[in-house]
Amino acid sequence: MQVVPPKIAELVTALRRLPGVGPRSAQRLALALLAGQGELARQLAQALLQALEHVHLCQSCRMYTEDVLCRLCASTERDEGVVCVVETPADVIALENTASYRGIYFVLYGHLSPLDKIGPSDIGLDLFSRRLQEGRIREVILATNATVEGEATAHFIAHLCQQQAVPSTRIAHGVPMGGELEYLDGHTLIQAIQGRRAYD
Amino acid sequence: MQVVPPKIAELVTALRRLPGVGPRSAQRLALALLAGQGELARQLAQALLQALEHVHLCQSCRMYTEDVLCRLCASTERDEGVVCVVETPADVIALENTASYRGIYFVLYGHLSPLDKIGPSDIGLDLFSRRLQEGRIREVILATNATVEGEATAHFIAHLCQQQAVPSTRIAHGVPMGGELEYLDGHTLIQAIQGRRAYD
Repeated sequence: MQVVPPKIAELVTALRRLPGVGPRSAQRLALALLAGQGELARQLAQALLQALEHVHLCQSCRMYTEDVLCRLCASTERDEGVVCVVETPADVIALENTASYRGIYFVLYGHLSPLDKIGPSDIGLDLFSRRLQEGRIREVILATNATVEGEATAHFIAHLCQQQAVPSTRIAHGVPMGGELEYLDGHTLIQAIQGRRAYD
Repeated sequence: MQVVPPKIAELVTALRRLPGVGPRSAQRLALALLAGQGELARQLAQALLQALEHVHLCQSCRMYTEDVLCRLCASTERDEGVVCVVETPADVIALENTASYRGIYFVLYGHLSPLDKIGPSDIGLDLFSRRLQEGRIREVILATNATVEGEATAHFIAHLCQQQAVPSTRIAHGVPMGGELEYLDGHTLIQAIQGRRAYD
């Protein structure tokens, strides 16, 4: 007999759409959310609605922000002449966590994918072209993923940069730190050999 | 530099309160919820608010329901004379999934825990006592967890049943199906030996 009331079943369905949440964890999360007087559910619903209402994309780099410009674009400590193009906001967070990059970013929210009908304007490249035309960018770092789609997207953006005579660079591919050659795939090893640098 | 806007940070904080969600998965969930036009976030907020508004406890067994009585208590196919006492709604779901129990339930939402100031009325035992006094219960199955608190709670409820002359039984403890004796703890093995039954 179906023992879970429909509204809880709908909550489980909504939770299952999240990445990495299967049927059992969705049920556990739903029951945890409703436990007690539903305190967690209330807090989460509130946080979701607040985020939906206040968060939008930075007019300059498309990173999430609550203002017109994100903190990085609004900062006077960042080099506006260097723009690092990434696929997702998570990439920005990962790069910022290294605390070693001083330029700004541009977030695509995806990659070019003709089969899924995702073209240049769907990943903000119309805005990016306008930024290139303004002439304030000295270097574009192509930091899309090292996947087929990421490479294709990097290639396309490199072409845009070339048209505006802005130098573009691609992040290095090779052996990750701590990695052992024996366990790496051939593609990565080829990239590591081809991308070798003078030993200093 | 803090690159995540405050409202997203608050959403991450709310998600981190969920069981099994650490800092990295909370961030991944938050970004997944806001991806696209925030479709997932809207759906989840809606599902949470709907559940909070419509779901409450069954007046008879305290299981979640949207009506006065839950589906099991309202059903004419269940034996109202047999009541299985469990700690959580997840226990009811687990037992119902076996499709072998035909009685009804009583959900405690926890266990007795004097150190945490959780007494009998905090786990609905005042309501349970009234149900015992009504005289329609023929057997109480004590299915609280096999933990110290679960055992103490079972002991307390057994005493309540005794006062009303209602027979109570405790679920069997022993070797789980598929389990190997070599890897089981001593307590379980002792229970398995003590609880042995005539071989049929």
